[in-house]
Amino acid sequence: MKRVMLRVAYDGTDYCGWQRQPNGLAVEEVINRELSALLGEPVSVIGASRTDSGVHALDNVCVFDTESRIPGEKFAYALNARLPQDIVVQQSCDAEADFHPRHCDCRKTYEYRIYNATFRNPLLSRYAHFLYRKLDAEAMRRAAGYLVGEHDFKSFCSVNTQVKETVRTIYSLDILEQAAGAGRLITIRVSGNGFLYNMVRIISGTLIEAGYHWREPETMPQILAARDRAAAGPTAPACGLTLMEICYL
Amino acid sequence: MKRVMLRVAYDGTDYCGWQRQPNGLAVEEVINRELSALLGEPVSVIGASRTDSGVHALDNVCVFDTESRIPGEKFAYALNARLPQDIVVQQSCDAEADFHPRHCDCRKTYEYRIYNATFRNPLLSRYAHFLYRKLDAEAMRRAAGYLVGEHDFKSFCSVNTQVKETVRTIYSLDILEQAAGAGRLITIRVSGNGFLYNMVRIISGTLIEAGYHWREPETMPQILAARDRAAAGPTAPACGLTLMEICYL
Repeated sequence: MKRVMLRVAYDGTDYCGWQRQPNGLAVEEVINRELSALLGEPVSVIGASRTDSGVHALDNVCVFDTESRIPGEKFAYALNARLPQDIVVQQSCDAEADFHPRHCDCRKTYEYRIYNATFRNPLLSRYAHFLYRKLDAEAMRRAAGYLVGEHDFKSFCSVNTQVKETVRTIYSLDILEQAAGAGRLITIRVSGNGFLYNMVRIISGTLIEAGYHWREPETMPQILAARDRAAAGPTAPACGLTLMEICYL
Repeated sequence: MKRVMLRVAYDGTDYCGWQRQPNGLAVEEVINRELSALLGEPVSVIGASRTDSGVHALDNVCVFDTESRIPGEKFAYALNARLPQDIVVQQSCDAEADFHPRHCDCRKTYEYRIYNATFRNPLLSRYAHFLYRKLDAEAMRRAAGYLVGEHDFKSFCSVNTQVKETVRTIYSLDILEQAAGAGRLITIRVSGNGFLYNMVRIISGTLIEAGYHWREPETMPQILAARDRAAAGPTAPACGLTLMEICYL
């Protein structure tokens, strides 16, 4: 028996998220189905990030155990020949037998993308949230600065969760701007040691309100101190979010 | 009666191209249908670029004539409320009555995007052609240099065309590289005073062969001189191509 690790990219548009749900097809279900068919044994992967419905990933990680003697690095080729176009293994390798993708220290990086222009851009609409009202990126940047470091992020956590421990560390939280089509692409790039349920989307929704001047950047410490979901902004839509990288320490 | 100009962006994936075809839905058909419904009169647009099936556009131009008194700049809002998500008017305005988008001098810019990596990137596959063999961008750049300027591009024109005059001017032809996911995005950016049928895709297919070292960059003048489609490389797939801009002079 050995443990194999996969690094998986997917377009989340047509999936109900990473994890199996009653309503729709999950990314892990498709991977389990194709791995089981490939190996002729029932396989069930353990994922690092249980991304939500509609969220994308360039680098989610999962592991599975198998009796197979296929070298770990060959699984990417064998699986990609079977997987649909919107799920692609980027790398595979043999892993330590006790490596668990959710219980090991790591640095995760997400990007939340906003297309800010008068009209939608059809080439960006799958991967960026469209907002026509002009965002002040500098105000977003000032607000973001208050969230970097170790904080209790309970205000930035969906109430639909059983997690008790809500302290997390954000290593960096940058607001990037670039020209795109007739508008601007604004990317919220955040790295941390872990994220609560919906945390990146709630941070994004709150920073958008700062970008609209609906919230003063200086109120961010009060939002953190409130430890109350109602103190933060709305949960920004899933399509803008991409899990970019998981780096094990 | 007045003439109105629209600047239109679309994701070409689900269309059989700009122009009405027997096999599938064309972008201009959808625009004609929604304009006619909006105005309560039959409307038929004249497009600047008859992009192929699967080709995208950020800025294609079309005009139509109408008895309507709606101010030109309002059409973008009214039409976008009716159009599907993958076709979006970026700008509209009143135009001169004799302005014809194909018979006026212009500078058109196209981008052909290639994702070069070991495995596909599902977030790029709609808008970039995937190639796993490593491309030498510098060789592509050397080959591209021979095509800049006024030349007879008959070798770079699909044989399925009735065009007699095959001399065109390429103002610039750049090869851009950037990191993307686990690979590189290579963009062939070309501006010219007009392009023959499939010309950008045949140039791209030929530059890809130069990037593989299957063709010496120094053979490009011979390909031009041959005035024979068979002398050039293959037509690169449609999904990589986007019409970026049409600038009237």
